[in-house]
Amino acid sequence: MKTKEITNNNSNNRRGFIKAATLLGAAYLYPMVSFADTSPGLNSTLPAQEKLVLGMVVFDGFQLLDVFGPLDIFGSLRDKISIIIIGEKGESVKSSAGPVLKLDYTFSNAPKIDILMIPGGGGTRREVKNEVFLKAVKVLAESAPQVATICTGSAVLAKTGLLDGHRATTNKRAYAWATSQSDKVTWVPEARWVEDGKFFTSSGISAGIDMALGLISKMFGKETAVRIANGAEYIWNDDPNRDPFAKMNGLIK
Amino acid sequence: MKTKEITNNNSNNRRGFIKAATLLGAAYLYPMVSFADTSPGLNSTLPAQEKLVLGMVVFDGFQLLDVFGPLDIFGSLRDKISIIIIGEKGESVKSSAGPVLKLDYTFSNAPKIDILMIPGGGGTRREVKNEVFLKAVKVLAESAPQVATICTGSAVLAKTGLLDGHRATTNKRAYAWATSQSDKVTWVPEARWVEDGKFFTSSGISAGIDMALGLISKMFGKETAVRIANGAEYIWNDDPNRDPFAKMNGLIK
Repeated sequence: MKTKEITNNNSNNRRGFIKAATLLGAAYLYPMVSFADTSPGLNSTLPAQEKLVLGMVVFDGFQLLDVFGPLDIFGSLRDKISIIIIGEKGESVKSSAGPVLKLDYTFSNAPKIDILMIPGGGGTRREVKNEVFLKAVKVLAESAPQVATICTGSAVLAKTGLLDGHRATTNKRAYAWATSQSDKVTWVPEARWVEDGKFFTSSGISAGIDMALGLISKMFGKETAVRIANGAEYIWNDDPNRDPFAKMNGLIK
Repeated sequence: MKTKEITNNNSNNRRGFIKAATLLGAAYLYPMVSFADTSPGLNSTLPAQEKLVLGMVVFDGFQLLDVFGPLDIFGSLRDKISIIIIGEKGESVKSSAGPVLKLDYTFSNAPKIDILMIPGGGGTRREVKNEVFLKAVKVLAESAPQVATICTGSAVLAKTGLLDGHRATTNKRAYAWATSQSDKVTWVPEARWVEDGKFFTSSGISAGIDMALGLISKMFGKETAVRIANGAEYIWNDDPNRDPFAKMNGLIK
């Protein structure tokens, strides 16, 4: 497996900064610049060792949009953020819809992660019973300053115990199953996404795009999030409380 | 390269049926069934040789959401549709954001395609000058009963000449560049997506999701499209004329 050239030697200060900014709820101080046509990335490029590392955990049976909605959004910041794909073992994973994604790292050689993401999909039903997978996800999530789950990815995170005592949401159609993974989480039935400390959890599938923009808004300021959404010609649901699918699925009256 | 087991020996009748249904604008006659939690696929599974083949053409520098938005939507019909990834050569392609997607086929061994899709992304700037790529795309698009492009994918299709005399749209930020690929296309500045005969063309990036649901609406009926959108917790912009990004990018007053 080829691995990307990401060094973390000089990134402790950056990571400390992230943690401080997260705790303060402060927008990060990246300069606002204009965007070029289809690639709405910030134009000034950081050296590789200064980039933030976004690690997406994947597994066989992941849901395509859970992974690639948020990664498309964060991909607009690729001059500031390196995206890596992490799996348990092997060279690749197969999505529930068929397409196969190559791994950049396995749990055993993954670098430190600044933003950890866990998607959902049919495969989560298997992974919540996979102790090796859960233990590795827990280790990554404990050290990451920012952790985000999409759809039933929150069921996986809940199963590690790390969401206990926190507010969180999940897929509205698989709500009963997902929330059964821990009764110590304060599950929120009506939410596009929920932010609680370093944890962002989104509702089902496409909600991950709205949450990713919410996370970018927190990290880089709302203007950056709006600019990325407009670049993707995406009508952002920027209100985490606007969730028509809770009622549709009988979770609220 | 591993190839999926798709046989096309018995699919001529099906393809003829598709073509007829497309010409008639008729909804296909698949049974409506209830959907199960996170996997809103139709439950009755066709034998592999009876499935429709959705072929997504990819290249280095493709835009993640252009590819995986529509494929997530069509992935909900995976009991009826096989998704294959097709590239010019090699084993895989690298998206503009970083993640690497494995190819199922190259142009030289691709099976017949029922629904051809062409995404956009920074790589299209290179591919509109790649004669080998354009010729192969043209061959696939000529024989496919249904062709859909996302974002600047329409620039590639326009460059083959196949869109000449047709109405089409494209990314609203890269509009000048994309539309310059052919002056014989009737380019539509204000459209979320445009349907003209067998060609569906979408606006930028996220618009591909709305178009994919529009294509499913045409092929399988609107009720199926709405059900898939709801399963993905996606607020579908189901009006192809609703496009706030044309005005935002100064294409209309």
